[in-house]
Amino acid sequence: MKVHAYAANEAKGQLSKLEYDLKDVGSNDIEIKISHCGICHSDIHLVDNALGITKYPFVPGHEIVGTVTKVGASAKRFKVGDRVGVGWQSGSCGVCEFCSVGDENLCAKMESTCVTQYGGYGDSFVVNEHFAIAIPEGMSSEQAAPLMCGGVTVYQPLRYYGIKPNMRTAVVGIGGLGHIAIQFLAAMGCEVTAISSSDNKAKEAAALGASHFISLSKEPKLDKHTNYFDFIMSTASVDLDWNAFFQALKPKGQLCLIGLNSKEITVPAAPLVFGQRTVCGSWIGSPSMIRETVEFAHRNKINVMTEQMKMDTVNAAIKKVRANEVRYRAVLTN
Amino acid sequence: MKVHAYAANEAKGQLSKLEYDLKDVGSNDIEIKISHCGICHSDIHLVDNALGITKYPFVPGHEIVGTVTKVGASAKRFKVGDRVGVGWQSGSCGVCEFCSVGDENLCAKMESTCVTQYGGYGDSFVVNEHFAIAIPEGMSSEQAAPLMCGGVTVYQPLRYYGIKPNMRTAVVGIGGLGHIAIQFLAAMGCEVTAISSSDNKAKEAAALGASHFISLSKEPKLDKHTNYFDFIMSTASVDLDWNAFFQALKPKGQLCLIGLNSKEITVPAAPLVFGQRTVCGSWIGSPSMIRETVEFAHRNKINVMTEQMKMDTVNAAIKKVRANEVRYRAVLTN
Repeated sequence: MKVHAYAANEAKGQLSKLEYDLKDVGSNDIEIKISHCGICHSDIHLVDNALGITKYPFVPGHEIVGTVTKVGASAKRFKVGDRVGVGWQSGSCGVCEFCSVGDENLCAKMESTCVTQYGGYGDSFVVNEHFAIAIPEGMSSEQAAPLMCGGVTVYQPLRYYGIKPNMRTAVVGIGGLGHIAIQFLAAMGCEVTAISSSDNKAKEAAALGASHFISLSKEPKLDKHTNYFDFIMSTASVDLDWNAFFQALKPKGQLCLIGLNSKEITVPAAPLVFGQRTVCGSWIGSPSMIRETVEFAHRNKINVMTEQMKMDTVNAAIKKVRANEVRYRAVLTN
Repeated sequence: MKVHAYAANEAKGQLSKLEYDLKDVGSNDIEIKISHCGICHSDIHLVDNALGITKYPFVPGHEIVGTVTKVGASAKRFKVGDRVGVGWQSGSCGVCEFCSVGDENLCAKMESTCVTQYGGYGDSFVVNEHFAIAIPEGMSSEQAAPLMCGGVTVYQPLRYYGIKPNMRTAVVGIGGLGHIAIQFLAAMGCEVTAISSSDNKAKEAAALGASHFISLSKEPKLDKHTNYFDFIMSTASVDLDWNAFFQALKPKGQLCLIGLNSKEITVPAAPLVFGQRTVCGSWIGSPSMIRETVEFAHRNKINVMTEQMKMDTVNAAIKKVRANEVRYRAVLTN
């Protein structure tokens, strides 16, 4: 069977049609007819070879949702017709200390949905069922797709770093990730402050559940919020004044980076040591964590805001994402 | 009543005798006849005014052990004749969110045993009983004194950052703090690697319970230990190649600083984000945590290695500590 996909053939290039043979459905695999695929910023970084790991032709896409069309002989989780999703990860070694305890996303031999193979900007995909996520009835596919990567990326640190409902939390950046993170934290009962460089996002932040708004253009040093936050999550895609963010943490506070917006991070040692503060990181999540993210989002009526665009308009869609004009997640549809 | 103490009168100066009036014993206070006082490196930093906060005359000393000689009308914890200790902290506001949950060491209005008043290099001290720690029968006073600051400083991060017995841990620096940390971790059942710049400490490290030894002069980049450790605690008093230490952490690994050996710390963002790694800090501990430290050390027969020197040889003792010749903690005795 042929897959009809869209591939970049050079760094920063336009995507063009690519046909290739769909891989065989192994005994633990399922075959998926792709209906939706979210556009994540990392797809674009990969198109641009910004990480130096892209092989061309490159088919992006790792926020896949579709319908099961074939089930391997030993696969147990799904039947033909089920709606499923696939995120960044499509495989792991299965035997290391991380895989053994359900931390597959930390496996050193991780396979990536669109790096080690052709990704989701196409019409079909085959994956080990362990890395496929059931989509609950009543959740639309366009809502589900961005949860596969963006959603779990903001959900997993809240769970792993022990968010509690009494915490004063902040989300830096109101975009594809930030608009979900604000809603997640509000749904957990936390005080949520949205921090943005765009003055005009205050109203949107409030609608998402933020009780406070800080404009970085008005308060770049966060100096009215010294010792204020228990948890700050940065979803920003630019380097920030980490010193200022760190000073805004209360004792025991945690500053969490979930994106590679800088090569390194420097924080002052005194507030780290004397205040038991932490700088930490997180990225995607295990299949179990994606399942939990989907269930949490569904139960709490999280509104993943998407703009749907046809798969064959992928170049226009990418252009719009690059221009930061999508509110908030572009989803390609077949 | 007069206190006979030793005070520095200028930065980096010698200590000389100082007599001053002991403060009144308030209703929640106890009066202590000091028998022992440890010499902590921070005493020397304060003598030198390295932090810019020293007021002269300055009486160092915040690892006090002695006998209760008077008990305030409302004090309940102790009776005359009890053996007690006092660490870095001698008071706090009592009402803030940190004091309210037993995190007095994070109180913004913390009072310090030797910064906001004259410290323990003398013969008497008065303190609110809440900040005095019972010394168990069978624990010598010279063993107990260094636990009040040095001991709790290495114990509290192990508890707060969730050390588990399966972890591969490392202690950087084998000195006053490090030699206790190695024993604590071994007593918790962990694999312990001692990391030192002194090649010749391998044997001592093994005797303290370390199963492995890394010489930084032979392996400065820790490149044979990439992705190896769950937890690295730095007790070193010099700036280190944090990048190398961070690369030596496994996914989910924690790098913990417990001293101010650098003004800031810089770590690479990629292993932080992609491996859920953490940089964190810790320093002293609450009165409850000091109590736990003492009980843990006593139950597990931790051998705090000390050299005792008479209080009136304080200048010689400080000289020896400055020269890094004490194995491992100097304790002044009256």
